[in-house]
This record gives sequence, structure tokens and C-alpha cells, in this order.
Amino acid sequence: MELSERKKRIDDELQRFFSSQDIGEGEIEKVFSEIPAFILRGGKRVRPALFLEGYKIGGGERIDECLRASLSIELCHNYFLMHDDVMDRDAFRRGGKTLHKAYESDFDSWTSVSLAINTGDYTNTLSFQSILVCDFPKDRKFEVVKELVETQKRVYEGQCLDLILHETPLSKVEVEEVLQVHRLKTASYTVACPLRMGFLLSPRAREPASSEIAESLGVYGREVGTAFQVKDDLLGLFGEEEETGKPVTSDIEEGKRTLPLVIAYRRGTESQKEEMKSIVGKKLSENEFKTIREIVKKTDAKRESEEMAEEMVEEGKRAVGDIESDFLVDLADFIIERSY
Amino acid sequence: MELSERKKRIDDELQRFFSSQDIGEGEIEKVFSEIPAFILRGGKRVRPALFLEGYKIGGGERIDECLRASLSIELCHNYFLMHDDVMDRDAFRRGGKTLHKAYESDFDSWTSVSLAINTGDYTNTLSFQSILVCDFPKDRKFEVVKELVETQKRVYEGQCLDLILHETPLSKVEVEEVLQVHRLKTASYTVACPLRMGFLLSPRAREPASSEIAESLGVYGREVGTAFQVKDDLLGLFGEEEETGKPVTSDIEEGKRTLPLVIAYRRGTESQKEEMKSIVGKKLSENEFKTIREIVKKTDAKRESEEMAEEMVEEGKRAVGDIESDFLVDLADFIIERSY
Repeated sequence: MELSERKKRIDDELQRFFSSQDIGEGEIEKVFSEIPAFILRGGKRVRPALFLEGYKIGGGERIDECLRASLSIELCHNYFLMHDDVMDRDAFRRGGKTLHKAYESDFDSWTSVSLAINTGDYTNTLSFQSILVCDFPKDRKFEVVKELVETQKRVYEGQCLDLILHETPLSKVEVEEVLQVHRLKTASYTVACPLRMGFLLSPRAREPASSEIAESLGVYGREVGTAFQVKDDLLGLFGEEEETGKPVTSDIEEGKRTLPLVIAYRRGTESQKEEMKSIVGKKLSENEFKTIREIVKKTDAKRESEEMAEEMVEEGKRAVGDIESDFLVDLADFIIERSY
Repeated sequence: MELSERKKRIDDELQRFFSSQDIGEGEIEKVFSEIPAFILRGGKRVRPALFLEGYKIGGGERIDECLRASLSIELCHNYFLMHDDVMDRDAFRRGGKTLHKAYESDFDSWTSVSLAINTGDYTNTLSFQSILVCDFPKDRKFEVVKELVETQKRVYEGQCLDLILHETPLSKVEVEEVLQVHRLKTASYTVACPLRMGFLLSPRAREPASSEIAESLGVYGREVGTAFQVKDDLLGLFGEEEETGKPVTSDIEEGKRTLPLVIAYRRGTESQKEEMKSIVGKKLSENEFKTIREIVKKTDAKRESEEMAEEMVEEGKRAVGDIESDFLVDLADFIIERSY
């Protein structure tokens, strides 16, 4: 599919961006040089690809300039990952060390955490900067910044709820709450925001009918983005470590309130509930991991999660029915089929 | 001085801002309601007062609208404090609990740290939002956002260097490095940035000579802002706890590389150096604290730090010589004289 071609162009642009960026001197530069290392060693570049698509949907033709602007959402995504990894105390990401773990080769562990928080914050300014400096009219860039800020606000609301749910007993977590986290946290900035940012830079964004298109892109984003996260939850349980780049047991060990897990708990028998409670949130043995997988299958939670994701994808496709974009249709299908 | 009047108006505006803000629902709102609690219980509002002054210098007359926009830099300041408190593992701020400590009444300690990081990030979006929604022309607001982003970038570079110096043996820390942290971290966003943000919203910012004024405000900001931080370092050693709102021993216990400390070490005798090394960065006894204070006095490091601050303030005043602003002159003097 076309995503892999876009990834190549976006990666080239990221390389150029980092080699032209002034990221401090001496010791400071050494710390911040982990940013390109972290970003460039993995990632699918779905978000900048969607940014580009939003721009094309709006009739945009200055593809190279749009590519430069699209780095914004990739940088923002990586900023979120850096802070998430700190909060989740994850050690690995994309087959390498997380930022706060990487810093441990030179600093004590708390300083490494502090540096990772700060480097995340710094990456966020790079995200804003790549919009501010790109060669589009100021009033357009203003709208793009606004979209980014409003989206970030929702993401932090989602992250807040996610952290609260993490502390809530599994028995008290509602399916709707899990979906709300997915909508606020992932869907908003993974699909809806990049599509709309790109569209806002395009010529059609100045036309009277533009708000309808932006609205449709928002609905597509919410539905397909939520499906993307549900699929992530499923891959976190049933995926292959070599393909996803992170240990397949980590979601369960961290006690993440994923959709299949919460559905399985709701549907489980008393003894399945007890088993789940005793396993989730701790270091797992091979057998315990198998047990969880089996409960999720036996309770039909796996199938139901898959079906929910499929329905969302269908609703997303319907929302963009009038917009001509093979990419959006392909991406929606890819999200369901992907194994990484 | 006029600062206390401005503080009152800014506090009113902050109250209004928070009561009109949608900060999530239910559990989310409960977590984010710590933001107004944190901000409103203290602070001098120096930054929004300077924002207003920059606007007045540029001939701005829409004071109420400018006040609303000026909240941006106060929110940004508080976001920095929230993350700083996490990194420094401070428990108290402004006579109350720091954010991650406040959350401990409802959550475990790591979740509280995670929530504090996230609430800081959220406060940053509120900072951007208060510019984006204010009633000034888009192209002006665009410039203000740019100023804020560029400043934040420097602040993170300064924070990075600060964290590195914290891990560097006292004997290897240079006076110039301490000053660089003060310039990047405090001076840039405490004085220069708010002055320039306010000025950028003003009518005069569209005139050809505006870049000269913005430049002078930048020099004033750098010098007076650095003096502000040096004074903070001095108050951290010689101030009164009731006035500064934080334990006077905490800078030494945290091992902060403050200007008086670094100068004292450079000038100390071998035995003073040894004493300093054995005391700094640990829980202090009353006697050890006295010892440090005495070394800083005996080595003339106190006097030299004070003189450096005074010289900076003079240089700052010279930079704005042609700009008519009693406020800037008064503020510069206040920074030297203040005891809190």
C-alpha cells in the first residue's frame, strides 16, 4: 500500500529536519541527540501520511512544503510516547531503549527520568516549530496550531482518565470508559488531528463548505482512530513480539485497562474473574499469559473487540463517503488487517 | 509599587478564566481542579504584569483584553513549576503541597507523579489557548505564539543543562555555566518573553522600528531576569522561610548549583571546599546550614553575587533607556531589594 512510500519521504524529511535543527551545544546537544535516535529507529508515520492526505483532499499541491509541516504531528506523537514511557515505566520501545532508560548510561536513574520529561517537553516545541516556520500563510498556520492545541488538550484528558482507570479495580472499569480513553487519547491525535491539520493548510479550507469536510474528517478520525487503538489492544495480547517491537506480555503486566480485557472480565465466570484479578498487573509466567489469552477468547471478548473495531471502521468509511480518497479507505482496511 | 495593583487584576482574570474553562468531567475534572488551586494560592504575577507593560510600551490601550492574553505566560510559568517540582522531588511550594504530593491523597505515589506530569502538560495547552482565543488579530497572535515557542525551547535547553550540572561535581561547575542556566531558564521566560509577547500585540509592533524596541526589551529581560534568579539563589540561602514560602535549606539539600555556592567553592580554602562537598546535597543539620552560610559570606561570594545582580540590573536599565517605563525601572530596583 501507499503508506510505505509516504513513510520513506517522511523519513527523509525528518533526517533533513534534524540535521538542520539547532538543538543546543555540547552536553545539551548530546542529551537532545537522543530525539532523532528515538524517532528514526521505528514508527509507521501514519500521522504525517494522514496530514498529507488531508492536504490533498483539500486540493493542496505543494506536497514538499506540506511534508515539512507534517513532521509536526510526528514530533508531537513522539513527545507523547516519551512521557508515556516515563509514566508506564517502560524500558523498551521500537526494539530499543526508552528515553529514560537510554539516559541511564550517563546519568542516575532519577536524573534520567527528569531528562526524559524535559526532552519530551522539548520535542513538543519542535512540533510547534515545524508548523510555525513552514511556508504557508500565517492565518492558515494559526488554524493548524489551534487544531494541535485543542487536540493536545483532549489527549491529556484521556491520559488523565487512563491513569485513573489504571488505579480502578478491574471490576469497576466500564467498557464505555475504555472507549472514552481511546477516543480522547489515541483517536483524536492519531487520525482526526493530522487529517484536519493538513486540510486546514489546503486551498479548499478557505471555501464556505470547508467546515463540513473538516467535520467528516473528524468523524472518520474518531471512528478509525478508536479502531486503531482497539486493534493495538488486541495486538498487545495476541500479536507477535518481533512485529510489534514490544514484549507481548507488557500490557497485562502493566495492568492496562484494554478493551478485550475489560470485556472479558465483565463476561467471565466468577472463577475467571478471580483468575484475571490475580494475574493482571504483575510479572507474568508463560502459563498465566496463556490463561489470560484463553479467557479473552472463551468469553468471546476477542471476537467482540474485533467486531467493534470493524464496525467503527465501517462507520468511519461512511463518514468520508463523498470525499474521494482511496488512501482513507485503504488505511481503514489496513488498520483491521495489520499485524504490527 | 504598582505590581500589587496589577496582581489583583490578574488574579481576578485568572479566577474568571478557570470558572469559564471546561476542564473535563467527573474524575478528570477533579484531577485538573488542582490547577487553579496550585496557581491561585501564591505567586507574584510578575510575568503577566510584564506582559501588560510590554503592551503599554507599544501603545496598546485595550488593557482588559491584554490582561486575558497575559494569563498565557502565568500558565506557562506554572506548567514549568509543576514539572520542576516533579524533577526536584519537592514536596512544598507556595506554602502548600506540590502537585504530585497533593495527588497522593487519592493515588499511589507513582500515579501521582504521572498525573503531575500530565497536568503540567495540560496547563501548557491552557497557556497556548489563552493566546489563541483572545481578541487580537490572528497575525499578531501568531507572532506571540512564536515568541512563546522559541522561549520554551530555550527554557528546556536551560533545564537540560541544569540537570546535567546537578550531576556534575561542585568542583567542575563553572560560574559561566550557572549564569547560562539562569539566562536560558529563568531570564528568558520570566522577563524577556512576557515583555516581548505583550509588545507584539501592541499597535507599535507593526511599525518599522519595532524590532529595535523588541531587541531592547530582550536585553533588559536577559539582564534583569538573570539578576532575578541570582537574587532567588541568595534568598534560597539567606531569605526567611515565611516570606519565600519554601524551606530555606532546600536549595542546599537538593544540591542546586546556585551562583553564590559555586563562587564560594571556587574561592574557598581546601578545608572549606571539603566542608562544602560533605554538606551539599544531603539532609542538613542546623549547624551545617550555618557553616555553608558562613563560607558563602567569608569567601565574599555573597557580596560578589549581590554585586553581579546589581550590575545586571544597571545594564538592563540602560538597555531600556529610551523607552519610557517607570514600571521597568521600579521592577529592576524591586528585584534587588525584594525579600521574597
